[in-house]
This record gives sequence, structure tokens and C-alpha cells, in this order.
Amino acid sequence: MQVNKHIQVTMDKIQHFPVLCWKTSKKVGAEDPRRIIHSLKVGLSLTLVSLLYLIEPLFKRLGSNATWAVMTVVVVLEFTAGATLCKGLNRGLGTLLAGSLAFFIEGVANRSGRVFRACFIGAAVFLIGAAATYMRFFPKIKKNYDYGVVIFLLTFNLITVSSYRVDNVLKIAHDRLYTIAIGCGVCLLMSLLIFPNWSGEELHNSTVLKLEGLAKSIEGCVNEYFFDTEIDENKESCSGDQIYKGYKAVLDSKSIDESLALQASWEPRHSSHCYRIPWQQYVKLGGVLRHFGYTVVALHGCLQTEIQTPRSVRILFKDPCTRVAREVSKALIELANSIRNRRHCSPEILSDHLHEALQDLNKAIKSQPRLFLGSNRNKASNMLALAAAEAGQKRCRSGGSLSSVKTDSSALMEWKTKRASEQSREAERKVLRPQLSKIAITSLEFSEALPFAAFASLLVETVAKLDNVIDEVEELGRIACFKEFINGDDHEEQHITVKCEKPKINVSQNQLSSVSGAE
Amino acid sequence: MQVNKHIQVTMDKIQHFPVLCWKTSKKVGAEDPRRIIHSLKVGLSLTLVSLLYLIEPLFKRLGSNATWAVMTVVVVLEFTAGATLCKGLNRGLGTLLAGSLAFFIEGVANRSGRVFRACFIGAAVFLIGAAATYMRFFPKIKKNYDYGVVIFLLTFNLITVSSYRVDNVLKIAHDRLYTIAIGCGVCLLMSLLIFPNWSGEELHNSTVLKLEGLAKSIEGCVNEYFFDTEIDENKESCSGDQIYKGYKAVLDSKSIDESLALQASWEPRHSSHCYRIPWQQYVKLGGVLRHFGYTVVALHGCLQTEIQTPRSVRILFKDPCTRVAREVSKALIELANSIRNRRHCSPEILSDHLHEALQDLNKAIKSQPRLFLGSNRNKASNMLALAAAEAGQKRCRSGGSLSSVKTDSSALMEWKTKRASEQSREAERKVLRPQLSKIAITSLEFSEALPFAAFASLLVETVAKLDNVIDEVEELGRIACFKEFINGDDHEEQHITVKCEKPKINVSQNQLSSVSGAE
Repeated sequence: MQVNKHIQVTMDKIQHFPVLCWKTSKKVGAEDPRRIIHSLKVGLSLTLVSLLYLIEPLFKRLGSNATWAVMTVVVVLEFTAGATLCKGLNRGLGTLLAGSLAFFIEGVANRSGRVFRACFIGAAVFLIGAAATYMRFFPKIKKNYDYGVVIFLLTFNLITVSSYRVDNVLKIAHDRLYTIAIGCGVCLLMSLLIFPNWSGEELHNSTVLKLEGLAKSIEGCVNEYFFDTEIDENKESCSGDQIYKGYKAVLDSKSIDESLALQASWEPRHSSHCYRIPWQQYVKLGGVLRHFGYTVVALHGCLQTEIQTPRSVRILFKDPCTRVAREVSKALIELANSIRNRRHCSPEILSDHLHEALQDLNKAIKSQPRLFLGSNRNKASNMLALAAAEAGQKRCRSGGSLSSVKTDSSALMEWKTKRASEQSREAERKVLRPQLSKIAITSLEFSEALPFAAFASLLVETVAKLDNVIDEVEELGRIACFKEFINGDDHEEQHITVKCEKPKINVSQNQLSSVSGAE
Repeated sequence: MQVNKHIQVTMDKIQHFPVLCWKTSKKVGAEDPRRIIHSLKVGLSLTLVSLLYLIEPLFKRLGSNATWAVMTVVVVLEFTAGATLCKGLNRGLGTLLAGSLAFFIEGVANRSGRVFRACFIGAAVFLIGAAATYMRFFPKIKKNYDYGVVIFLLTFNLITVSSYRVDNVLKIAHDRLYTIAIGCGVCLLMSLLIFPNWSGEELHNSTVLKLEGLAKSIEGCVNEYFFDTEIDENKESCSGDQIYKGYKAVLDSKSIDESLALQASWEPRHSSHCYRIPWQQYVKLGGVLRHFGYTVVALHGCLQTEIQTPRSVRILFKDPCTRVAREVSKALIELANSIRNRRHCSPEILSDHLHEALQDLNKAIKSQPRLFLGSNRNKASNMLALAAAEAGQKRCRSGGSLSSVKTDSSALMEWKTKRASEQSREAERKVLRPQLSKIAITSLEFSEALPFAAFASLLVETVAKLDNVIDEVEELGRIACFKEFINGDDHEEQHITVKCEKPKINVSQNQLSSVSGAE
């Protein structure tokens, strides 16, 4: 029976496999249609280099070395132009260097007897192999030329070793270089001229998306924190997941940003606005955004923490907090728009509203001084109890924490005696142990006031960090020669004269002012 | 002159290049001596496969196909055993699949005329190329088989295209497979048997280091927050940088962890303790540690925030906060030790001390209720002013913020009028603009109390998150069949009978109990 069922399940899986494949294909294509274009480009390139074999005159000329063109296309042609260039140049450089070194060694080895020659070649292969591999651990080489060193090693070994058996090595090397050049040529043609995808473009867009994601996250956090179960029931969907999505892309962006910037630095200039686009500044901005993101994570953490300020107490601060969050989020979206349209950001980016909202928050907190008192004062305790009673019962966990507040040391003792008697039973340990620090925390009375204070403080912290973000975006705008800000610019798409501060690049300045004049 | 200077600088660089190289080499080697061993291993492997060429009888058998062995070694041999296995198997699978498909197409194409055959091959190359490239975008394939698809594409194209010109394709394919197998064999021998580096080991150790780093960061944060300039002047060095180092590795660990776990899953079992080591659980633990890390970042942010609670006020809470941090840090280090020694963590991991420290913190905060009042109450204002005056003057920025507190709207107005008149001057904008939100924040009076509340709340939050970390570590211990905890175990290295909860793996249970019996 068991086996039958297993077979049944496997059969089902096989039957559903084509459908699953088709669905995945459609999804992958819908997510980014450029993928389909890229696949067709690779197919076309491969067919082109195959012609070296299939067409008689070409094959007579190049012979079986044509395989190297095929190999080059398969290995070098990448999704973005920058990655292709980076790999292509690495391949070219590695091949050239390896070729030169191999010929040098060949020259030395040739002057001696056959056995000594074999030993010499063996030793050279060992030494160069070990040295090149060791060099791959150097941080600078690992970052920029890892692939080049692999190709160097590959070519060097192939040439050196085959030179022992073949006589016209020079002819082989020549043909091979020729076909590799053809392969690289096809790759460059495909990636630079036919529907090119630019790594720089990708980096630029991802930066915009990150800013927008953070904006959404902050607003989401604050909305959920003051979320009133009764009034806006249908807003539930736009919470947790959305907030997480907003900052997730930012947190994990480091390696992607860096490789995109590296690839982008190989790409030829394709912007009419600036001589050289400062990709490293994008990486730096990414770092600042990550730090901003950590604060947002901490803010999100306030929603999920064990002890919660009762909802009825929170509601007192709803208005100013929501406004602060809205203003921060507005500023972030303005920054995103400024980068998207490659213009400086509005001078109004930190508006009066933000300041007013901060002041209101201040006033609101000052108007409730008793909140921040410990409950050893009767009034405060009563007030909190009242608030909790109001809010409580409605799936509000924090309400519960209030009533169990007084059990601190007894709960702990109970837990400990239980624990001591059953120490060896793993399963129970799993159930019991995690309670300890929760008991320890929820049993403390200060916790009622602290969570909201932390929330407010983190919210204020986002405003402070907003400064760094604005700084970096302005720096980016300055180096990348963004347009001046003009009101309503985003809609009318007016191209204003480009102001560039770098004095050294006057030639290209003239070029680009003529370009913008022509528009 | 300019040119001369430039040449001078370049000459200097060239002169210092060998020294720099030598220093980098030494540093890279000292950081991880396994790198030197790995380099030597690669050199040795290359020399071994070169023998296929250099030794007469071997060459007669395999001919120039021996290049494929060289190529395989260069491409497949990686630093860790898991990565080598992963690449080797991918390469083998890709080659086999591509070979079969190519022969199928060859069979179909052979039945027709020469021109039609060429067209057919061209079409097949295009279709398969495009389809395989498209498949590389599928998330599952990208994650596990990316390299395999590249090799598939490479081999398929080489075989299909060359079959058009060569008659004995089967012989070529056979020899090639043979040499590739030799290359893979050498790689596996080198990476599995001679000084192997295990990805799993790496993941294991990095997890331990991450826990220890977090422990250091937390203690560092709290020490720096309550750092008294007068008393411990010489402790300065162990601050900022150390804290940052501690959590940095955790934050950026996602992609490294995932690829290590992937590679480790290919590695044969090399632990005597467990049938199958749950690498995915390490990744999960890494995720929880990252979340713990975000709280530490936020805690660190409290040290760098614009508004600071005056030092003399903070000092009141120094003792309990330091103790909480010490206990959290101790728990993390116990977890690190438990993973390092592959044993369950001590049941005393959440000790009474932690609870006592939390209670003391609670008491300390309750004993200073006026701190959490706005300064519209004279008493509180006086107290804070007094505290600030005490602490102030000594490079304590927060002291300054108190005296400038009342200038809020006037400072803003001043800034705005300046701003309006000079809007177009970029340089000044840079100097002036960043002040705005700082003015907005520091001019608010609530800020004095909030930062410490946030700090305390985040500290309590770390205790809460510690639970998740302990949960995941215990889960890891359970799945990976860690040893039972025994007091003083770490020092005496007693190997106790392994308790394994999984009922399904009785066979290996017996095996491993006999292993541990033999120890």
C-alpha cells in the first residue's frame, strides 16, 4: 500500500510537471520581459557563430578552432551589457597574458632535451597554477579580475601543455585568438546594440525602488501600530507582509549593488547628462539606505515585541505619529522621484509639516506625563489599568500582560521548580524554556511605558537619518550633474541647461550642452 | 611640471608594487593558511593532468582530448569540497544530458540532405540555446544548477556543430567524456582526501563567530553608552569599530550562508554524530541572528543619535543596564560554545541574574519618574538642567543641545530666510540644508527622556529576541543530534552517548553509537 501510494504521488508529480514548467515559464517572463529577449539574443548569437562551422569557406579558413567562438559566446554573453563587457575584457586580457607567458616558457624549454623539457613544463604548470590560484584570494583581484585569472590559467595550461606535442603552436594560438575575437565581437554586438540591458540602469532603478519601499514600510509600520481593529477592518491586508517587502530589498542589497556598480563601471556612457556616472555613489547611497533600513526594522520590531503599550494609550499619539511618518515617507518619495527623473530634489523636501508634526508629537507626549511614570504611583496605575481595560479583551495581548504583571517572581519560581524536576525531558524543555525571558520581561512594570517611548524615539531617529539619505542623494545629484529642480518638472519633462560643477571636463561639457540643445 | 610629477608618482608606485604585492601575499596567507594549501593543491592537480600530455603512452591513448582534463581541473576545483562536488556533478550531468540530446538531433539530421541538415542544426542551436538560457532565470534552476545549464549549452553546441564536419563523433565524445572523468576524478581526490576544506565546517564556524560577534557588540554598546570619560580613558579603543565589526558579519551573511549551505548539502557526511547534518537549519539560525542583529544596530544607533540623554542622567541606570547586557552576552557566548562543541546548551542559560538585572533596571527607572516627564514641570527641568550642567562642557554634545533647546522656531525661521535668499547656491545649500531636521529634532523638549527610554526598550527587546535565538539553536541541536549538556564538559571533552530523537535512522544510530563507543 505504502509503495502504491508513493508511486501514485510520483505519477501525479510527473503528470503535473509540464503544467508547472509552463506556469513557471510564464511567471518568469511576465516578471521581466527582457529575459525573453535575452534568451532569443543568446540563441541568435549561438546560431551566428555556428555558421563558422556550417558555411564551407569559413570552415576551411578556421577549421575546428571555430569551437572557441562557440565557447566564448556561451561563457561571455551575460544579461547586462556591463557584465558582458567585464567578462569579455577579462577573457581577452587573460588569454593575451597567458599566451605571452606560455610563449616565453616555450622559448626557454625549447633549448633543452626532451625529458628536461617535460620536467620544466611540469614545474611551470605547478608554479603558475599555484601562484595564480593564490592571487585569486587577493581582495582586489577577487573583486575585479577573478574570471580573468581563471581564463589566464586555462589558456596558459592549454598552450603550454599542447606545445609539447604540437609544433606550430603559433598558428594554433593565432587561429584561436581570431575565433575568440569573433566570439567576443558577436557578444558585444548583441549586448551593446540589440535591445541592450544596462547594469547602470538596473542600479539606478533599484535605488529608486528601494527609496519607495522604505517610504511604504514606514507608513505601513505607523499605520499598523495605531491600527484600530474596529474602524478599518479591511486595511488588514496591507500590513506585515507589505512592510517586510518594503525594507527587505534594502537589507539584502549589498552584494547585488556592488556587482551592478562594478559592471556598470565597464559600460560606455549612455547618458546625455554627464561625462561619467558615479556608480560608486549609488553604492554609498545604498549603504546609507541600509542603515536607514535597520531603523525601520527596529520600528517594525516594535509592532511584534512581547510587551505592548495598550491600544487605547497608543491612540492618544496616533495623529502626530502618523503625520511624522507621512512626512518622512513623502520626503523619501520625493527623493525617489528626483533620482528617477535625474533632477535635484525639491528644496521643500523637509517641509514645515514635518516640523509641525514633530512638535505636535512633543506636545502630545508632554500632555500625558503620567504615562511615563512607573505604576507605583496609584494614579498612573489606575490610568493604565483603565486604558488597558478599555482596550483589552479584543485580541489585545498587552491587556493580558497587565493583569499578569504582579506574578513575576512567583511565575519564575514555578517555572524553575518544574524545570528542575524535568530537566532531562527534551520535549518539555522545548515547551517550557522559551517562556522564561518572556515571563521575565512581561512581569516588569516599566515595560508599559517604554515600548511607546521606543517607538516614538525610533520614529524621530528616522527623521534624523533622513538627513544622511538626503545628503547622499544631493551628493549623487551633484556628481552626476542632475538637472536643477523646477516646480512641476516631473510632468512637463522640461530639459533645462545642465549645470556641471566639475571644471576638468569642459570638452564633454560642450558636447553635452550641444546634445541638450538639440533636444 | 605637472607631467613630471605625474611620472614621479607613477614611478614610485611601480617601485613600491613588489613590496605591496609581497605584503598582500603575506596578509592573505596569514588570514587563512588553508589558502596556501589550496593553491598548492591546484598546482599539483594541474601538473597531474598535464602528465596525460607529457607521458608518451597516455598521450597516444587519449590524444589532444587531454585538454579537456586540464580544462575541467581549472574550472571545477574550488576552495571547499562542497563547491567542488557541486560543480563537478553539475558538469558531469550537463555533459551527459547535452551529449544525449546532441546524438538524438544528430540522428534526425543525418537522414536528410546536406543543406537541410545545416538548417536543421542551425535551428536546433537557436532553439536549445534560447530555451536553456531562459531556464537559467527559473529561481530553482538558478539556485542549484546554473553552472550545469551553462555546461549543457556548451557541450551541446560543441557536439552538434562539430558533428557536421566530423564523422566519428561517437569516438570524440567517448574520449572527451573519458578525459573529463579523469579531470573530475583528480579534482575530487584533491578536494576530498588531501587537506579537505568543508563548506559545512565553514558554515558551522561562521555561525559560532557570529554569535560571539553579537555578544561583543551588545556589551560594547552598553559599555560605550555608559562610558565615563574620566574613569576609563584607556577603554576608548574598544568602542565603535569593535561594535560595528561584531554585527557587520551578521548583517551581510545571507548570500554567503546560503551558498555555503548549498555546497555543504553536496558534501558527504563527515561527522560521527549525526546521519545528516541539517544545513538549512544553520541558514534559518542565520536569519534569526540577522534579526537579532538589527536590534543591535538600532541599539548602536542610540549611541550616535542627535539628541542624547545627558551622561549624568544615564549614569543612574548604568549598573542594571550593564548587567542585562552582560547576561545577554553571556547567554550568546554559551550558545556559541554549545554549537562549537556540538552539545546542547546549558539549562542555566537564562539565569536568575538576567531576571534580577531586568528587575533592577525596572526599579531604577521607577525610582526616577521625573526623568520621563516633559520639562514643562519645573522640577524635572531643573533636575535635567542640573544633570546636564554636571555632565556638560566635557565634549558632551548633548549638553549643548539642552541650552539651545528653546530656539526651535526662531532657528528654523532663520534657516528658512537664509535658504530662500540663496536658494540657487549649491555649496551653501550643502552646508545649510542638513541642519533642518537636526534643528527640528533637537529643539523638541521630549527628546531628553525618549532616547534613554528607547535604549532601555531596545535592550529589553534583545532579551526577548534572545528567546528566538535559543529556540533555533536548540532546534539545531535536536536535529543535528548534539551531545547532552554536562557540566564542565567543554574542558574535559567527555564523549557521552549520543541521544538521537529521530526514530527512522536506527541503522546509522547503531553505527554511530559504536563509533562513539570506540572513542
